[in-house]
Amino acid sequence: MVRVHFGEDDRWQGKPLHEAIVAKCKELGIAEVIVFRGIEGFGSGSRIRRSGHWAFSKDAPIQLSIVDTEEQIARLLPFLGTMVEEGLIATSKVDAIRYRRSSTYSQ
Amino acid sequence: MVRVHFGEDDRWQGKPLHEAIVAKCKELGIAEVIVFRGIEGFGSGSRIRRSGHWAFSKDAPIQLSIVDTEEQIARLLPFLGTMVEEGLIATSKVDAIRYRRSSTYSQ
Amino acid sequence: MVRVHFGEDDRWQGKPLHEAIVAKCKELGIAEVIVFRGIEGFGSGSRIRRSGHWAFSKDAPIQLSIVDTEEQIARLLPFLGTMVEEGLIATSKVDAIRYRRSSTYSQ
Repeated sequence: MVRVHFGEDDRWQGKPLHEAIVAKCKELGIAEVIVFRGIEGFGSGSRIRRSGHWAFSKDAPIQLSIVDTEEQIARLLPFLGTMVEEGLIATSKVDAIRYRRSSTYSQ
Repeated sequence: MVRVHFGEDDRWQGKPLHEAIVAKCKELGIAEVIVFRGIEGFGSGSRIRRSGHWAFSKDAPIQLSIVDTEEQIARLLPFLGTMVEEGLIATSKVDAIRYRRSSTYSQ
Repeated sequence: MVRVHFGEDDRWQGKPLHEAIVAKCKELGIAEVIVFRGIEGFGSGSRIRRSGHWAFSKDAPIQLSIVDTEEQIARLLPFLGTMVEEGLIATSKVDAIRYRRSSTYSQ
């Protein structure tokens, strides 16, 4: 599992960063991605949020939760390192089972 | 801790799946459940989301975060396996302390 | 990493509890904090949510995700224990890399 934190206004090649990362995950065949928008926060991801006026900014904190095998995550991490200029990338191990309508498999 | 990912439109016996899982958790006396709605995502949880038109669908990604003892989680997992037709169930260990107004205990 | 769960209506010294915790994290120089609002839930954090009428209450479940070194988290935990009257505090280990515009460092 990988969590990526950054600001909603962050861009990658003109696109919102979270859309760019979701597109890259699709391209790599990553199993599961969810993008969450927080209501408040601060951190390395945004100069605006560090300024203390975060609550009045539109730059909401974004978290992506990405789940796949260690091999797939290892393929993804170099792209995340390039795309995230300011933010946090945190990895942790989870035991995951995926369900599909036709079949169930563990990974 | 268990994370469950699926689509907002998923149903269990006619009810929204996230409401059905919350009701089952209450029935089992599970300690903590929070349901989050993501703003974007894809995965095993939805054919619509796999189609690439996810952003224009109302089928938002849902994540349930469930925290309890290993024994309680072991009681819950078979129900989750039955109820989640398409989605992801990921377990991990956390050290948790619960607080109540009258008393504090660790679990 | 620390997750803190409680209810949106919870207060600390007259301020919303999530704002009070974010302010305390800033004061301690904590690296990353994001506040998420869930759409449903129950747990130790709220009498209203336990009453079964949660869905009709404005007391949405709140989750704070806090990421920093073990030393920094150890400084923060006593404050969380004092401030959270009803709720859950869960800690887990993650491998995190932070990025800033000027420099990148691992922690």
